[in-house]
Amino acid sequence: MKLVRYGNPGREKPGMLDAEGRLRDLSAAVTDIDAAVVSRHGLRQLAALDPERLPLVDGSPRYGTPVAQVGKMICVGLNYADHAAESGARVPEQPVLFMKATSAIIGPNDDVILPRGSVKTDWEVELGIVIGDVARDVSVDHALGHVAGYTVVNDLSEREFQLEHGGQWVKGKSCDTFGPIGPWLVTADEVADPQNLALWLEVNGHRYQNASTRTMVFGVAHLVSYISRYMTLLPGDVISSGTPAGVGLGLKPPTYLRAGDVIELGVEGLGQQRQQVLAHPADR
Amino acid sequence: MKLVRYGNPGREKPGMLDAEGRLRDLSAAVTDIDAAVVSRHGLRQLAALDPERLPLVDGSPRYGTPVAQVGKMICVGLNYADHAAESGARVPEQPVLFMKATSAIIGPNDDVILPRGSVKTDWEVELGIVIGDVARDVSVDHALGHVAGYTVVNDLSEREFQLEHGGQWVKGKSCDTFGPIGPWLVTADEVADPQNLALWLEVNGHRYQNASTRTMVFGVAHLVSYISRYMTLLPGDVISSGTPAGVGLGLKPPTYLRAGDVIELGVEGLGQQRQQVLAHPADR
Repeated sequence: MKLVRYGNPGREKPGMLDAEGRLRDLSAAVTDIDAAVVSRHGLRQLAALDPERLPLVDGSPRYGTPVAQVGKMICVGLNYADHAAESGARVPEQPVLFMKATSAIIGPNDDVILPRGSVKTDWEVELGIVIGDVARDVSVDHALGHVAGYTVVNDLSEREFQLEHGGQWVKGKSCDTFGPIGPWLVTADEVADPQNLALWLEVNGHRYQNASTRTMVFGVAHLVSYISRYMTLLPGDVISSGTPAGVGLGLKPPTYLRAGDVIELGVEGLGQQRQQVLAHPADR
Repeated sequence: MKLVRYGNPGREKPGMLDAEGRLRDLSAAVTDIDAAVVSRHGLRQLAALDPERLPLVDGSPRYGTPVAQVGKMICVGLNYADHAAESGARVPEQPVLFMKATSAIIGPNDDVILPRGSVKTDWEVELGIVIGDVARDVSVDHALGHVAGYTVVNDLSEREFQLEHGGQWVKGKSCDTFGPIGPWLVTADEVADPQNLALWLEVNGHRYQNASTRTMVFGVAHLVSYISRYMTLLPGDVISSGTPAGVGLGLKPPTYLRAGDVIELGVEGLGQQRQQVLAHPADR
C-alpha cells in the first residue's frame, strides 16, 4: 500500500493510492495514519479494504508527512562510504546516530525556510524507515519485521550550525522545515529489497546526488537492530538512513542553498519531493 | 502552583498540591497536564481555581512525569565549569546541545533499568525547564516569558555508549528509563530566581553532587533564547540545563551505578526523586 496524509497542515486526512495512482480517502476506515495504523495489525486491516470502493479525492491536495505525530526521528550519519569521503570523515565502524527535532518535520512539498543568518544550508536525500511495531533490542534477523514501510526524507542540514557552533550535530539538523518526509509511506511488502533502490536529488534541475541504497555501509536491518539496542523504537518513529555523496558541503567549492532554489528528490518506488527554498523573514 | 500527574503509567491523572502539600485532583478542570495547560493561558485558568475546593486524593499514588507527551527533550552539556573540568573538557563558548529520546522518559520515582551489558551507567542531577509558550528566535530578555516552570531531571548517561561507541552522545543518553522527570512542575511564578537553586544527588545515601544553579555557565534565559535560534521550542518541551560536578565519570576511580543502588536527588523548591536501579532482564 501507498499511504498518505493529505490536506492543510494540521488538518490532514488519511488516504491511500489505488492501483492507478489515484488518491482515495481513508477517513471512513481510520481517523489518521498514526501509530496504531502503522502496526502490523493496523496495516493488515487496511490491506483488507478494496481501494476501488474508497471515495476518490478531487484535485491535487497538499501532502503532509505520511505518518502523524512522529515520536522521534533518528538519523544515521556517514552511512555511505562516498559521502564519508567527501565529508573528510572515515567510514564509521558502528552506525553514527543523531537526532533531528520533530518540530523540524514538514510535508514533502512544503517550503524550506533558510534559518536566520544561514549561509550553509545543505541538502541530503535519504531512505526513511518507518517503524511499525515496538522494537526493543531486536536481532538483525528479526529487525525488518518491525518496519511498517519506507518513505523519502530530505535531511536538511546547516553546516555552520552543525560543525562550527560547538558540540553536537543537532544544532544544524533541527531548524524548522529541515525535515520533509513523504509523499508516501510505502508498506514493506511493496519494497522487494530496501538495499536496491535508486535515490537522487536535484537543485534547480542539476542532479547532485545519484546513487543506490546498495552502497549503504549499514543496511536497514542492521540499523533497526543496532538502534534498538540503545533506545526502544516505537510505532511511527522514523529512521533516516544516511545520504550518499553529492551534498553541497562536498562540492569544490562548497555550494549551498539560496532563496529561490528548487530542490527535487526521490527514492525509487517511494515517490518524489519538491521544495521551494525561501529566505528567513528577518533576512528578506 | 505545583502541578503533577499521578497514577499508573499511561493512565496518569492531573493533580495539584495545595498550600499544605496535599495532593488534589484536577480531573474536573483539565483532562491532563498537556501542552494547552502549560501555556500562559492554560496556567492562568488553573491559577483561578481554589485548591481547597478540589477533591483530596487518598493514599500515596505513583507520580508520573509532570507534563504529558513531552515533544522533545533538549539537554545541555558541560554547563557547569566544575563538571566540564571533571569530564576533561573545556568550558564551552556556546551551549553544547544534544537530545534525549522521549522514549527514555519515566516518572520521578520509577525504576532505572541498566541497559543490557552496561557497565558505565552514570547519574546527573539537573534543573529541568518546561516550555509553556512557543519560543522561536526569542531574545534573552523575553526568554523567561516562554517558560511554564521548572522540574527535576536525572539525565542518566551510559558513558561507554556515549563516548566509546562512535559518533554523537545520543546513544548514551536515550536508553529506556534514562529520563526521570518530576515530581512537580513548579510554575515560574513560584521560583524567585532559577539561578539560585541548590541541587544535589546521592547514591545509597552518599552525596556525590552538591551545587547551585548559580554556577551554571549559561543561565536559563540564555539557554532558552539560544536554543530557540536553532529550533522552535513548543509547549511541553523540556530543556535539561546541565549537571554540576560529582558524576561517576569524574570520580577517581570512576564509579558507576549497579543493580540494587538507590539514587536520590532534588532541586531546591522543586521536590525530590528516588530511583531503584535494576539489572537488565538479560543480565539478571
